[in-house]
Amino acid sequence: MLIPEIEPMGDQALSERLRKRIDGKTKPLGALGRLETLAHRIGSILGSEEPVLSQPQMLVCAGDHGLAAKGVSAYPSDVTWQMVENFLAGGAAVSVLARQHGLALTVADCGVAREIPPRAHQAGAPRLVSCRVAAGTQDASVGPAMTMAQCEQAIENGKQLVRDMPGNALLLGEMGIGNTSVASLLLARLGGIPLADCTGAGTGLDAAGVARKLQVLETALRANSDARRPLHALAALGGFEVATLTGAVLQAAAERRVVVVDGFITSAAVLVASMLQPAVLERCVFAHRSGEPGHTHMLRLLNGDALLDLGLRLGEGSGAALAWPLLESACAFLREMASFESAGVDGSHLS
Amino acid sequence: MLIPEIEPMGDQALSERLRKRIDGKTKPLGALGRLETLAHRIGSILGSEEPVLSQPQMLVCAGDHGLAAKGVSAYPSDVTWQMVENFLAGGAAVSVLARQHGLALTVADCGVAREIPPRAHQAGAPRLVSCRVAAGTQDASVGPAMTMAQCEQAIENGKQLVRDMPGNALLLGEMGIGNTSVASLLLARLGGIPLADCTGAGTGLDAAGVARKLQVLETALRANSDARRPLHALAALGGFEVATLTGAVLQAAAERRVVVVDGFITSAAVLVASMLQPAVLERCVFAHRSGEPGHTHMLRLLNGDALLDLGLRLGEGSGAALAWPLLESACAFLREMASFESAGVDGSHLS
Repeated sequence: MLIPEIEPMGDQALSERLRKRIDGKTKPLGALGRLETLAHRIGSILGSEEPVLSQPQMLVCAGDHGLAAKGVSAYPSDVTWQMVENFLAGGAAVSVLARQHGLALTVADCGVAREIPPRAHQAGAPRLVSCRVAAGTQDASVGPAMTMAQCEQAIENGKQLVRDMPGNALLLGEMGIGNTSVASLLLARLGGIPLADCTGAGTGLDAAGVARKLQVLETALRANSDARRPLHALAALGGFEVATLTGAVLQAAAERRVVVVDGFITSAAVLVASMLQPAVLERCVFAHRSGEPGHTHMLRLLNGDALLDLGLRLGEGSGAALAWPLLESACAFLREMASFESAGVDGSHLS
Repeated sequence: MLIPEIEPMGDQALSERLRKRIDGKTKPLGALGRLETLAHRIGSILGSEEPVLSQPQMLVCAGDHGLAAKGVSAYPSDVTWQMVENFLAGGAAVSVLARQHGLALTVADCGVAREIPPRAHQAGAPRLVSCRVAAGTQDASVGPAMTMAQCEQAIENGKQLVRDMPGNALLLGEMGIGNTSVASLLLARLGGIPLADCTGAGTGLDAAGVARKLQVLETALRANSDARRPLHALAALGGFEVATLTGAVLQAAAERRVVVVDGFITSAAVLVASMLQPAVLERCVFAHRSGEPGHTHMLRLLNGDALLDLGLRLGEGSGAALAWPLLESACAFLREMASFESAGVDGSHLS
């Protein structure tokens, strides 16, 4: 079955126990703000009042886009493989941040135009996995970016990637010159939001560049006007890395892992996954609100309350990595903080 | 000299080198958003293009307030010493978060009503330091909370606390039932902001409680109507812990440590310090925007751009601790990320 069933969590008893535990900690009611909501969510996903995040996995999916030839990005497609090499060599932002926080980094070649040569994996270093569907997608401005078979293959690849990973938390990252265009297209098509509101500067287009990008994307929507259901839109508007991430999100949610969503592009994968299985969203934590303007619309659509709002617009998983310590803090306070009772602090006003 | 001279940083050459280094990293220009501003600030404070934060110190200053007897808080004053014991026993939020991030935790009894008994310090555990000025301040609603001599003593205590600390970063925390009232009073008096805009629910007053608090604070402003200059206002409106923090901020800034400001109350100490020595603000990083409404006005006054906005209103230093990994990330990317040149990534569009 391509799309796994994902049940709503719905354990009201656990939810109530978590709420009581949070409220009984030595702090004014609600004083840890959204860290309390986060703790409740993680506890619910992991089914524990004392949740422990273990062996967190940063999955960076990379792919190239036929659309990039139409000049939708400030960078040439070659930067995709160059950055994949940079991830693996340890010099990219996500490499640095994954190292800082002890996140195992896997880079998946989901369909980079120039194949990333395989290499031996050294313990503790970033790992390269090849799950190439093709050498980049077709140009979505003239027809479907992928065939449905390719799209399904990419989804299966994402599911398998997660099945092969240890741990109970998955952080999402991506690389692919042109992929803010894919996210804009999916948001416009599946969210019913005007394309102009979904389209931004990406890696750094000027105003004229954004206007050109918008024209190309309008053409792409017209060229794929019949692709309106989630899987069809995903196949038509493309992104091997986005489709692979969609599969990864579905699998991780089915396994009740905590899914840490990065920015605009990984959110597009979550959008598709959540339209196929709405309960996916109960397993997601939105790490940050991207500086890319479409992401604000995306988060509203996904009912996502992002932890950070630092004007990040790098992708790679960098925002997910930056937010990671907040998840650890949420679990730490649930596990380790004293209660009014245990600490002998006067909480009588609470009763 | 009570107030040390603090020179503006003004190293334009270093500032320019930092800017170039940040822009040369393998990412679109500005794509790490406010993490780039943060990296620039820390590099400037520490005088390095490859800054290393070392032996970070969390200083939690505690004190009691005569004003608390007037019912300005949802909690009784006894909670101050109870929470200090909780900090030291490792069960409070700041204890948990300091442990998570390897922050050395010092709790200073600056004037808690019930003296905190001294105890042997165990390596790695929270440390108690006694620098009591008196057993709580006087009631500011009937006259000055402190004498000027007491206020100066508390400032000297704060300076000495920092002199005795290793490392190059100071995180600010506080505990004291009634001290959101002190912060509101200082903000109203020194910032010229209407008291009603400075006054909030603190630890959790209801609307009637906030209205009562506001009345008491109006009385306090009237009772100390002549105390208008920073030191006089600090002495009159009070807080041994706020005055001690003011001294700590001045000393840390003079030594060019990175000062990580927590929420509303520690920001009040920074407000006083910055009115005495404006260049203090160049050494500050504002960790978060508190859920206490006055903090938004405070941050505007201090030109502070807070890193987190999670609706926290706990104090203790909990927000500073939560933001700490972002400072580490800012330094890590400055030190460890590859440049376009070193990584062989095509950045030709940048030139």
